[in-house]
Formats: sequence, structure tokens, C-alpha cells
Amino acid sequence: MKIRIIAIGKAKKNAIIEQCAEYRKRMQWPLDIVEIEAKKTNPSQQKKIEADLILSEIDKAGSSFVIALDERGKSMSSPDFAAFLDKHRVGGVSSFCIVIGGADGLDQSVRDRADFLLSFGIQTWPHMMVRVMIIEQLYRAQQILKGHPYHKE
Amino acid sequence: MKIRIIAIGKAKKNAIIEQCAEYRKRMQWPLDIVEIEAKKTNPSQQKKIEADLILSEIDKAGSSFVIALDERGKSMSSPDFAAFLDKHRVGGVSSFCIVIGGADGLDQSVRDRADFLLSFGIQTWPHMMVRVMIIEQLYRAQQILKGHPYHKE
Repeated sequence: MKIRIIAIGKAKKNAIIEQCAEYRKRMQWPLDIVEIEAKKTNPSQQKKIEADLILSEIDKAGSSFVIALDERGKSMSSPDFAAFLDKHRVGGVSSFCIVIGGADGLDQSVRDRADFLLSFGIQTWPHMMVRVMIIEQLYRAQQILKGHPYHKE
Repeated sequence: MKIRIIAIGKAKKNAIIEQCAEYRKRMQWPLDIVEIEAKKTNPSQQKKIEADLILSEIDKAGSSFVIALDERGKSMSSPDFAAFLDKHRVGGVSSFCIVIGGADGLDQSVRDRADFLLSFGIQTWPHMMVRVMIIEQLYRAQQILKGHPYHKE
């Protein structure tokens, strides 16, 4: 099961880079992070420009199940998220693209392209923190599916 | 408005320490973090021992409004959380205690003592990550109340 995270912005803070690296190291699923740096423009155009770059990266990844992180999406408990990934794996999905927008969120075209919108609750989180959060949830999902005690009920 | 975070476990990872320090530096509300290290025992007793230490720290803090982070709690959007803090401040609360349990969560006695149970969604998060998450939400609340563009709708 290959996972590719497509994210707006280059992580610059050590704390973010370290946390992502740590969970990636512990993860058995191959995980790539594609960082997209879009030129800064006015806010109304920014999301559209970012969206075009995201959609092009999704296309490059070939046939993948696309999960976009979005406040309007559906929340899942960690065991449900693990079961969700596994259900799609069993159903023939061998590759997931996970999309994280920039500071302004996602353009509607990315939402439309996604197979699933995933929400981390009604709070607003910094997009760089969301990167750590999703990698942790993926690692947790792996441990849940392995029956490992990392995840406690 | 004074804030005291009472949390189980000593942060050892640089990434966690750095992120907490960074938001604290940017925060104008005085913020203390009280780290409680409870001796490791069997899981059934662990939460109770931690609870006694937490309750004693809450008592030391004097008259405070106690918010406990708990999956069974209520979720609030970031603007609603900001409004919630401000409403209590206006109502006379000058000090908040925010409680974060250990890897096994909180004992019922702490839930009972809390004035409010706050949830960060139905996902399970590492308790050290929750520490960063709540400090970020407090910083975000401050910026929302100041009308600062850190928080974008």
C-alpha cells in the first residue's frame, strides 16, 4: 500500500520535519511527501494556482484513491480510519494520494477531484501541523491493523 | 487571563518542546505548563495515581476554570473556542487550568472535577501532540480575539 502526501508549502521548521521523519521511519507503508511551492499571489488566485499544481501531481501518481484533508469533510475515529484504508486496500486500491492545502485551504476543483474528504474536527489547524497529524494517523492505522498496542482504546 | 496547563508526562522530544515554546513566546496570556511525572504502575492504577496528582495541582492553582481535554468532550470551532474563553473572562474567570491526561487518558474523577470537557475530534491523538494542539488553539484564540489575520476563515 503506497501512500503519497501532496502538500502545499515546504516544511521549514525543524519540529515539523522531525515529527514527519520520525513517523515515516516507523511506518512500513512506503510514504512519499511531495511538497508543492506555489508562487505567492493574491489570495483569490492563490488557491486556484495551488489547485492546478495539486491536480497535476495527482495525475502523475496514476490511479490512486485521493483523500483530501478538508474541514467540510467527514471525521473518522482512528480505528474507523484504519478500517477504511484496509477496506479500500482489500477492494483493490494499491495507492493513496493524500492532499493537504495551503494556509487558505483547498480550491473546489481539488475537493471535486477527491474520492474522500477527511476532516480533523471542526477546529482550524495550521496546515503544517495537519501534515504531522495525518502521518501520525496513518502510523496509528498501521499499528491498529497489526494489532499493535500503540493504539489504546 | 492566566492559563496553566497541567499535563501528564515530561516532554522529551525536541519537536514537542520547540513547538510549545514557539507558541508560548508568541502568546500574550501568561502560560505555565506543569508537567506531572507519575511513577509507572499497572494500567488500572496508573490513571488513578495520575488523577490524584492532577487534582492536587488543580487545587494549588486556586480558583480556576478547569478544562479537561477528553475524547468524550465537546468540540468547538476555533472562533467558538475563542468566544468561549472570552465569555468566561468577561464573566469573571481570571485563570484557566487545562488538563491533559497520559497515554491512557483521564480518570473519571478528573472528568468530574472539570468545568468543561473539550474534545479535539473523534480521532485519538498522542497526548504529547495534544499539548502542542491546545497551545496552538489558545494562541489562535488570542489572535482571533485581537482580530489578527493569523486565523483565516
